[in-house]
Amino acid sequence: MTSASIVAVGTELLFGQTINTNAAFISERLQLLGVSVLYHFTVGDNPKRLKETLSRAADESDIVITTGGLGPTQDDLTKELIAELCGRELIKDEEALRRLDEIMRSYGHKSYTENNLKQVFMPEGATVFYNESGTAPGFALENDGTTFMALPGPPREMKDMMERSVIPYLMKRSDAVIYSKMLRFYGIGESSLETALLPIIDGQSDPTVAPYAKEGECSIRISSMRGTEEEAAAAVAEVINQAKELVGEYLYSEEDKDYPHVMVEVLTEKGLKLAAAESCTGGLFAGAITSIPGSSEVFDRGFVVYSNEAKRVMLGVSDETLEKSGAVSEPCAREMALGALKRSSADIAVAVTGIAGPGGGTADKPVGTVFFALASKDGECITREKRYRDRGRRVNRHVCVLELCDLIHSYFKSM
Amino acid sequence: MTSASIVAVGTELLFGQTINTNAAFISERLQLLGVSVLYHFTVGDNPKRLKETLSRAADESDIVITTGGLGPTQDDLTKELIAELCGRELIKDEEALRRLDEIMRSYGHKSYTENNLKQVFMPEGATVFYNESGTAPGFALENDGTTFMALPGPPREMKDMMERSVIPYLMKRSDAVIYSKMLRFYGIGESSLETALLPIIDGQSDPTVAPYAKEGECSIRISSMRGTEEEAAAAVAEVINQAKELVGEYLYSEEDKDYPHVMVEVLTEKGLKLAAAESCTGGLFAGAITSIPGSSEVFDRGFVVYSNEAKRVMLGVSDETLEKSGAVSEPCAREMALGALKRSSADIAVAVTGIAGPGGGTADKPVGTVFFALASKDGECITREKRYRDRGRRVNRHVCVLELCDLIHSYFKSM
Repeated sequence: MTSASIVAVGTELLFGQTINTNAAFISERLQLLGVSVLYHFTVGDNPKRLKETLSRAADESDIVITTGGLGPTQDDLTKELIAELCGRELIKDEEALRRLDEIMRSYGHKSYTENNLKQVFMPEGATVFYNESGTAPGFALENDGTTFMALPGPPREMKDMMERSVIPYLMKRSDAVIYSKMLRFYGIGESSLETALLPIIDGQSDPTVAPYAKEGECSIRISSMRGTEEEAAAAVAEVINQAKELVGEYLYSEEDKDYPHVMVEVLTEKGLKLAAAESCTGGLFAGAITSIPGSSEVFDRGFVVYSNEAKRVMLGVSDETLEKSGAVSEPCAREMALGALKRSSADIAVAVTGIAGPGGGTADKPVGTVFFALASKDGECITREKRYRDRGRRVNRHVCVLELCDLIHSYFKSM
Repeated sequence: MTSASIVAVGTELLFGQTINTNAAFISERLQLLGVSVLYHFTVGDNPKRLKETLSRAADESDIVITTGGLGPTQDDLTKELIAELCGRELIKDEEALRRLDEIMRSYGHKSYTENNLKQVFMPEGATVFYNESGTAPGFALENDGTTFMALPGPPREMKDMMERSVIPYLMKRSDAVIYSKMLRFYGIGESSLETALLPIIDGQSDPTVAPYAKEGECSIRISSMRGTEEEAAAAVAEVINQAKELVGEYLYSEEDKDYPHVMVEVLTEKGLKLAAAESCTGGLFAGAITSIPGSSEVFDRGFVVYSNEAKRVMLGVSDETLEKSGAVSEPCAREMALGALKRSSADIAVAVTGIAGPGGGTADKPVGTVFFALASKDGECITREKRYRDRGRRVNRHVCVLELCDLIHSYFKSM
């Protein structure tokens, strides 16, 4: 099995100012390619320690991927030290120069500076990875059985270069094609999901099925490495079908989209408009829905009714309900949803009222007690009562947003 | 200067399933103690590679801090390998045993299992760090000029042990006390902040002044290491005063609280209630304000008016304004704020309308064009127009939330 080490370069990482998210991203992608990651190293802009680390990483693994240290300043040494370690000259790359000139002009500069010019010199024999989202190119360099790959440090540039250049470069070598899908689930815990999927997790080595837990939800990545993309995709599709038979009722996305995103797509497809009435989530649900570009086509309006008076005035919740059942109750959620439907141009209105904590809980209605409702123009009104385990205000509220998405999803599934 | 290396242990890190946030946290804390961090290493649950890494880290630095691998399973080897490297036996720690028994009983178990018992054996001569938020104790072990410190992997347990045990342990050795404050700024860029603070950054070695950039805002950490806490606190206070003279107008927190949090505190203190009318932020501002416990005392209600019709019906924005100036305009923002004030029990109402992107921009009003307004019961109505650089929908919206907080802040400062 091919092995790899990842070397992050930058003093800001050792100061703790920046969290190294690059290593996890690259590791996950390499694992999908069947490459085993043995080490992550982080080292500052110190030539001696950086060179020693590169040399050790090369001794330990087949592939050494660096992030950072490709910039225009004298501190940026990754490229120079890799070239030195491999006994290569640095040579001007004409295409990199042309791109640099273009970028600098687009920034309104006359052209590049002497400093910037440093970035277009590449080790002799390297395959240059042009940077589509920044100025520093990366590269791959084969030397003595080791593949060095140098990527820029900013996560956006690194990710872009991984997808465009690094993965195709490694796949060309491997004679195999990877295909993978991330499935997202709501309403089932990680261990229940794993148990339910055991028949397909245990039996197979390809496709692989790897579960991940996120806040309030779970995902599985199904990956296959085959001779052609068609074969790999077919193998993954078969496992997806098996997974659907086992836990299909909890599946909400086969495309690694989040729940609000999926709901915006479903509403768009059906040409329906949504309104929301929020108490304990205080606008977070509307914020999540409107985070999706194009949501203005489906999101009509939102009512953030934190106080009882707001519930009464903005949504017409009755005094009787507020006095007899309280603001955190099934009747209140129902009246909120019906009120939002009546006072908007929406086809569907959802409502949530609950106790997010840390304060406000009682013996009868502890923190984590939440009521949900959905009312629709076709006369339906569904409610849900949940008693979540208290996971802190932030997570409690986040789960309520997912539950509202799930309520809409259930409504469409039952239609 | 004392040097340190941090070794993270765990195959899940090499799979990319978990991002190593521990290394940055520990590094920042060590830097405050005047310890220079030279390396971060990540290695899986592989005895040979872990032992080699520990040994190399000890060769390179005075302090070696590990995270992870202290659990009850056979895979958890950090403690065993440190003991082996230092030639120490593992000895049962009676206090750890007593605590384990207590924890397991509190979980409803009869007592600990054979597996768990592994966790109470500690290297001979180690200073045990009892774990107040989990079952695995950590420790410090002095060996041959190197200090090994083993901490649990879960960030909550690690942080707790850092604060309670590791920092006091290291400070006892150093005979000095650290005091630090994080100041947060809005409305000034990182490089302008650094330039403005040059007189206090350049001149001094203690207190140190370290700038940090966050999304849409900046922070500085001012730290001093002195003989007593009083001396260190006085030195920090003096630099805070100097910083206030230079950039005080942009300062919003001396306690590392976020802007919505600070605004909830100010409103609470003044006994005033707030309402919000949101178009492009779609509920995010209300969501951020209500994320603060106790915000129900100050947040009256929110209007998420994504459509023109919602702006008209919910807030009374005039047809004339919507037709002549458009929804993204200063008059619309003003009418939204005034409408929210009139239709609520709030003392202050804020409004935001703009183009968050990626679509919707025009030559006249490109993505990043946003109008803000604040209306108050005392008859004031302030507006702001911003043309932000487009940083993507998510960041654009986040900056609008900060700007609304800043508008409220300015209003109070001008009172």
